[in-house]
Amino acid sequence: MRCNFRIKESALEQALVLAQFLAQTDFNDLPHSALQAGKRGLLDCLGTAIGGANSQAAEMALNLIDEAGGALQATLLARGKRTSLRDAVLFNATAAHALDYDDTLSAPAAMVALAVAEQRSLPGRELLRSYVLGFEVASRMTRAIGGWENARGWHMMGVAGVFGAATAASLLLKLNPPQIIAALGVAATQSSGLMAMHGFLAKPFHSGKAAANGVFAAQLALRGCTTGPALEGSLSVSHAMGGTPTPDLAQKLGESYAVLENRLKPFPCGRLGHGAIEAALKARSAHKLTVEEIVSIQMHVEPRAQYLMGKSEPENGTQSMFSIAHGVAAALLNGQAGPAQFSDESVRDLNLRDLRRRVEVIPDPRCRAGEAKITVQTKSRGPLVSEVPIQKGYATNPLTDDDVKEKFLALAEPILGPTRAQRAVNLVYGLETLDDAGDLARLCA
Amino acid sequence: MRCNFRIKESALEQALVLAQFLAQTDFNDLPHSALQAGKRGLLDCLGTAIGGANSQAAEMALNLIDEAGGALQATLLARGKRTSLRDAVLFNATAAHALDYDDTLSAPAAMVALAVAEQRSLPGRELLRSYVLGFEVASRMTRAIGGWENARGWHMMGVAGVFGAATAASLLLKLNPPQIIAALGVAATQSSGLMAMHGFLAKPFHSGKAAANGVFAAQLALRGCTTGPALEGSLSVSHAMGGTPTPDLAQKLGESYAVLENRLKPFPCGRLGHGAIEAALKARSAHKLTVEEIVSIQMHVEPRAQYLMGKSEPENGTQSMFSIAHGVAAALLNGQAGPAQFSDESVRDLNLRDLRRRVEVIPDPRCRAGEAKITVQTKSRGPLVSEVPIQKGYATNPLTDDDVKEKFLALAEPILGPTRAQRAVNLVYGLETLDDAGDLARLCA
Repeated sequence: MRCNFRIKESALEQALVLAQFLAQTDFNDLPHSALQAGKRGLLDCLGTAIGGANSQAAEMALNLIDEAGGALQATLLARGKRTSLRDAVLFNATAAHALDYDDTLSAPAAMVALAVAEQRSLPGRELLRSYVLGFEVASRMTRAIGGWENARGWHMMGVAGVFGAATAASLLLKLNPPQIIAALGVAATQSSGLMAMHGFLAKPFHSGKAAANGVFAAQLALRGCTTGPALEGSLSVSHAMGGTPTPDLAQKLGESYAVLENRLKPFPCGRLGHGAIEAALKARSAHKLTVEEIVSIQMHVEPRAQYLMGKSEPENGTQSMFSIAHGVAAALLNGQAGPAQFSDESVRDLNLRDLRRRVEVIPDPRCRAGEAKITVQTKSRGPLVSEVPIQKGYATNPLTDDDVKEKFLALAEPILGPTRAQRAVNLVYGLETLDDAGDLARLCA
Repeated sequence: MRCNFRIKESALEQALVLAQFLAQTDFNDLPHSALQAGKRGLLDCLGTAIGGANSQAAEMALNLIDEAGGALQATLLARGKRTSLRDAVLFNATAAHALDYDDTLSAPAAMVALAVAEQRSLPGRELLRSYVLGFEVASRMTRAIGGWENARGWHMMGVAGVFGAATAASLLLKLNPPQIIAALGVAATQSSGLMAMHGFLAKPFHSGKAAANGVFAAQLALRGCTTGPALEGSLSVSHAMGGTPTPDLAQKLGESYAVLENRLKPFPCGRLGHGAIEAALKARSAHKLTVEEIVSIQMHVEPRAQYLMGKSEPENGTQSMFSIAHGVAAALLNGQAGPAQFSDESVRDLNLRDLRRRVEVIPDPRCRAGEAKITVQTKSRGPLVSEVPIQKGYATNPLTDDDVKEKFLALAEPILGPTRAQRAVNLVYGLETLDDAGDLARLCA
């Protein structure tokens, strides 16, 4: 039994420093670079939510939400309706993760920030601040719990995302530092999500439930809920999950911001397959490849990529997001790898299936993270090679502002129309002057 | 990275056997003894929910629920109102765990069984069946995840309770075996709750959220949500939480039922303090002790009891539930240890505080689980000793049917009145003949 209630006060020092930092960091204290990165992250997440609002997982969520009813507190994105705050963020954050096109950590904080700001008619700067700080806490908890490669099989989107959501809600509800600690404590005792769900419809709900549970945590803390020492020490959530029992939650607070390292995705599928897809697109374009001349494809990737994205025969769109072979074949066949390429329809496409079966994925220890190399064996031109040293979307090779905007418009225009989609871009990039952040949510309804 | 999607089919064998057993086990297949134990468990849980419906935690839950609104699908016990299924079970199961008077595992399954049966106007036998089988799965998952003494600090009420809730909801929604596996998978990826919350207001929400998340899991499974291999193997929830990666979920199914081993609580506080309280009550009665003559008290308990219940100076009612010294002092002072003795008021009582400070709790390795010995030093009679070899409520010394009924009536009468409280007892003991289980929920509204 490792239970010990006689935790020394000092054991809560890091959490208290963190909570004080969160409460005291004004919008004006945030550096310009962090605000810019925050806008990019918000716009990206908003786009993936709008694009995912008609996905299978989002449909399920909507169905449950309609059945349960609720007060009209916040907008369901791209659905033209409103419901209770908890269910609105459940829907929006599930939608944002459904295409596997989001940055895989932001959505709970971003969607909670948007919905709470809407409910309380708060200005755009508060929305942006709470998202940037929510992302900060989610990132720190990710590290504390063992990182993205947590050895016990925890999925950080759900597990750490709930802390981001709780932080964003806490700040917009104007909790004081002890209440913020309580909110993070309630988040800790709801933290969940398993790697086992990769490739299944349950996965996007990691994001949705993290958002709803984070709101719930802040709402309980506001009402005086007390919690035990769950952020540090032998009873902490990170210890429980196999991470460090003494995470340095307050290290270098304010010196830099995690949102600056945020990795936005160029393709709607598991991140470890991105280098391969990019290499395939590059090969297709550089060599003006046609499918007819392709005999076979050898794809060299970092070994982890094969591990996580190794589904060779996906049965549906959701599974195809975790199949390098599928992504590479789609890129070679269609010259692009967007949401349409990871749909049920695309998986059933016989030409694509035929090509997919000719992709050989080779885990190569010489490949570093984000590196990929493709060799296409052709009928008449012999082997054609293309390499990607650092995949697009990594911190050292980020999406440009234009990339982010283009991605958003591609997702949002078919649903909102070009005028509203462009207006949403403008609202996000002008968040510091937006009086009521609810305008943004309503515009994307 | 331990992630591997190429799980062999055989890895899901246990889960499939379990799911088939659940779907195929009719009310008539359940032995009389299990049904009787089920009725006792349900009645006990119903009483603790009614008794806890005005607790601080339940008030917080109600406040959030009122704010969120929702369709009128199920009853909030002892509150005379209805709301959505998910929020009704959130409230009822939180209330049931708020006094620390419930059996500490049943509530999610029991409260979900009651609410779903009400929503769907199902007969009493279906309510009883789904509770008994829900309890079965929660117990098996408790074992799989490392038992009540999980070394990493997980609290089984939340962690395993969600499986009980998901099972009960799955059966009442008439899911087929693959859907039941999916429901248990969604439960697995929401499973949470930390030991750190013992003695804090967040703890009863482990039960409430387990119930709500279990309903959510079954509702998603009904709508076709797919999940990965989260019940067995290297990606399983039990592995993630530090339990066994290969739990024997299907061992001896139907040969016996866990509900027969269910341990109902005689006192509303941490179970490991029960022996001490019982010994104190016995000493008071056997020696006709008055407080005036007591100099000091030495309490010998099993070492774990001191570990978990060692709060010597509780600051409020919630903390007093985890203080042997408080419970023993209250028992000696008041001659009873009911909800009133673990309230904020009781903690502030100066006579009780004075006596509490004279209780010395001695962890004694010679004491077995459930054993306790009290020595009261008196002014004129010297040391007086009383021993409890096996505390009341343990499987080998269970509460009698009369005890269970008396406990229920003491909790329910002040709220429902004697006529309705007695009628609730009759409905539970006659569940097999009740056409609409909603009658029971509405009676306890």
